[in-house]
Amino acid sequence: MVYFDAASGEPLDPAGREAYLAALDEGWAGPDRLYREGRRARMLLDAAREAVAEVLGCRADELVFTGSGTSAAHQGVLGLAKGRSRAGRDLIVGAVEHSSVLHAANLAAARNGGGVELAPVDIRGRVRLDSLTELLERSKSVGFVAVQSANHEVGTRQPLKAISALTAEHEVPLLVDAAVSIGREPVPSGWSVLAGSARKWGGPTGIGVLAVRKGTRFAADWPEDERERGWAPGPLNVPAILAAATALRARSAEQQEVGLNHRELTTLLRERIPDLVPDVEVVGDAEDRVPHIVTFSCLYASGETLLLELDRAGFSVSSGSSCTASTLTPSHVLEAMGVLSQGNIRVSLPWDTRREDVEHFLEVLPEAVRIARPEPETTAPTAEKTSLTIDALGKLCPLPVIELGKRIGDVPVGAVVRVLADDPAARLDIPAWCRMTGQDFLGTEPVEGGRPESALGYLVGRLH
Amino acid sequence: MVYFDAASGEPLDPAGREAYLAALDEGWAGPDRLYREGRRARMLLDAAREAVAEVLGCRADELVFTGSGTSAAHQGVLGLAKGRSRAGRDLIVGAVEHSSVLHAANLAAARNGGGVELAPVDIRGRVRLDSLTELLERSKSVGFVAVQSANHEVGTRQPLKAISALTAEHEVPLLVDAAVSIGREPVPSGWSVLAGSARKWGGPTGIGVLAVRKGTRFAADWPEDERERGWAPGPLNVPAILAAATALRARSAEQQEVGLNHRELTTLLRERIPDLVPDVEVVGDAEDRVPHIVTFSCLYASGETLLLELDRAGFSVSSGSSCTASTLTPSHVLEAMGVLSQGNIRVSLPWDTRREDVEHFLEVLPEAVRIARPEPETTAPTAEKTSLTIDALGKLCPLPVIELGKRIGDVPVGAVVRVLADDPAARLDIPAWCRMTGQDFLGTEPVEGGRPESALGYLVGRLH
Repeated sequence: MVYFDAASGEPLDPAGREAYLAALDEGWAGPDRLYREGRRARMLLDAAREAVAEVLGCRADELVFTGSGTSAAHQGVLGLAKGRSRAGRDLIVGAVEHSSVLHAANLAAARNGGGVELAPVDIRGRVRLDSLTELLERSKSVGFVAVQSANHEVGTRQPLKAISALTAEHEVPLLVDAAVSIGREPVPSGWSVLAGSARKWGGPTGIGVLAVRKGTRFAADWPEDERERGWAPGPLNVPAILAAATALRARSAEQQEVGLNHRELTTLLRERIPDLVPDVEVVGDAEDRVPHIVTFSCLYASGETLLLELDRAGFSVSSGSSCTASTLTPSHVLEAMGVLSQGNIRVSLPWDTRREDVEHFLEVLPEAVRIARPEPETTAPTAEKTSLTIDALGKLCPLPVIELGKRIGDVPVGAVVRVLADDPAARLDIPAWCRMTGQDFLGTEPVEGGRPESALGYLVGRLH
Repeated sequence: MVYFDAASGEPLDPAGREAYLAALDEGWAGPDRLYREGRRARMLLDAAREAVAEVLGCRADELVFTGSGTSAAHQGVLGLAKGRSRAGRDLIVGAVEHSSVLHAANLAAARNGGGVELAPVDIRGRVRLDSLTELLERSKSVGFVAVQSANHEVGTRQPLKAISALTAEHEVPLLVDAAVSIGREPVPSGWSVLAGSARKWGGPTGIGVLAVRKGTRFAADWPEDERERGWAPGPLNVPAILAAATALRARSAEQQEVGLNHRELTTLLRERIPDLVPDVEVVGDAEDRVPHIVTFSCLYASGETLLLELDRAGFSVSSGSSCTASTLTPSHVLEAMGVLSQGNIRVSLPWDTRREDVEHFLEVLPEAVRIARPEPETTAPTAEKTSLTIDALGKLCPLPVIELGKRIGDVPVGAVVRVLADDPAARLDIPAWCRMTGQDFLGTEPVEGGRPESALGYLVGRLH
């Protein structure tokens, strides 16, 4: 198997593994204990904290270790929101932030009596500075702004330099979830709170990092605990922290070299895929992006089938299509960008990816997509009509779009096709289909029937 | 070094270590992923869940894995309190529960608009059934009762059978923190929520278990997360979970044999220590207790010095004395029991403890205690007075008690000594000194000066 889902987590780095094993012997005891084993664990912990702080660009006493990257994001958001709750209660959060940040912000706002404002992104997934400025100017009571270093699904870097200048001007703290880029790119500055996840840089699962700049108002919104300044309840897992620090040092040392290699490989994917697969949309910024992520969507294809076909061909990737989510809704990132979500695939490269694996992926992809695209049923040619309603209520992605593609030719140029659909992915995919095929998306209208919360009529004008 | 602090956590069990290493290769991927590595991790996770559920006496779908034992306790308390908040808001919590349970209960009560009632314990640390009944009858709105399986500092088992009958009668759920006993004794039944910690049974740090009986009202009081039914946010650490399950199976298989051995060794300690060390109080129940814990306190001794002397002699133990706590207050467990806290030592045996290590401990203990007891200053013999005030304001444990012991002879039998002290440990240790030496503790009175929150005058009548 070739593993191309590094953005979800990498296997434990070999140096990290060795450090873990050594620390199981030397650092298993509680570092708060006064006896020898405890003091030894404390020394290892201190060394690990120094090493990680150096990479993150903070002081060791600004950094705590949490029980996961998710916890780091949750505690960063909840702690900053609570610390700031007298100064400001509305939280401005990028629309394409990781779900851990979004969910924690929703809870924090509810607890502190404020709201969450989503900062919109452009079609490449980049937070719009004009909209962010407007949000900052409109709200009289901003708790913080949260924007990631780069997007975890499409790889687009966020304009953090400009954003941190903006938040500084408004005297509002900036929370940066840098999980996607730590160990791969220089860590951004300008943050008040920084969160990351060891498993994304080749460290073990179960270790997160949370840095809080001196002077930031930060208050625990969880049960009291004397460890890690009260910011991360629970025992310190010294062996895993040591493994995380060791992996981070190893990755940081080679990040430039690995990054160049990854950028070459992802550029190859970005350039070749549209040639090899018809009706494909490669999403995210082509240039200003982290090196290891490429994401594309395939019109008419089922994301789930595509995942399984690629798995069968020996490749492990992930997908933001609705059919691969337990909620049956498309990824909120693709939705906020307004891009196609059907047949969606994210390729994210682990540090040791070889060019031949990427080339082999390009060889197998076209056939996998072909299989993931249901054969159009052969229907009797219909007499040309001046208008047409396609009832796709109850049909799941990608079927509504497939029906549309198959039957648009049934109406003359200039006529309108009405697609009734209640699959949530249609909201994204019918406009994207129009953009990709050069037809005219005219808007939506309410319809009766279907699932009431998501049923819509989509109006499409035939242009050619 | 001989490690006698198993109740804080044991080194990773050898079988658990092997399982961890194997799972680093086979189960490192996200178990929610559709590709091969993910499915393999899911299979390992499912097997581990079945194995742990069997030991805990629950169904696999009643069990989630959390990021630590602390998290399991926090989430158990917060989730049950929130789930029950319409039915009842007051939380009844044993006075000697682990601090993670107490702190979470305080937060839950504050969030849900209720209070925390501490169920008092007797001098052996056992929850008093009469008091618990009274608390249940008095409150009209009980959210839950939380009582541990056995106490983590003194080893006393709680009367869970009677308590669960009582909570069932009042239709109130029972939360049991079984961290101290899982893997060492049969897991109690009668709970609605059960919490435990893998590192206490020889599993890795960073894994907790939280079981919630079907039908229990339980609601997340933390950010939304789709994993583990929303009860334990964050990624599942499959290698560590597998190590935890493997260690638990290994320990459960030998728990009877190990338990018999430990009981013999701790009985030896309980019986020999009072012969070897003068002025010592062995605390906790002599019979109805977990097999691996013995706790005792040494009058006039500094707990911190005692820890360091024992460390120098090759033994790692812990202490509930105020001088060993970052807060400089004695352990809340010893306080609730009303027993001596100075010169306190907890010995807790790891599974592979050898008799010769325990015997060697008994050899070195008397000298360590002798060193930890400051030499009384030689003072000129004082003329006998009918009353005496000892000003120990600003002096830390064990000095106020040492002064008292040294100068009680300055007054005639029948006279009263007034000790002014502001060290919080004095509240516990002066009455305990009276009990142990056969003098008469008459009560306290307010005093001026010293730290206002803890300054008191202690009245002691000389009886002999």
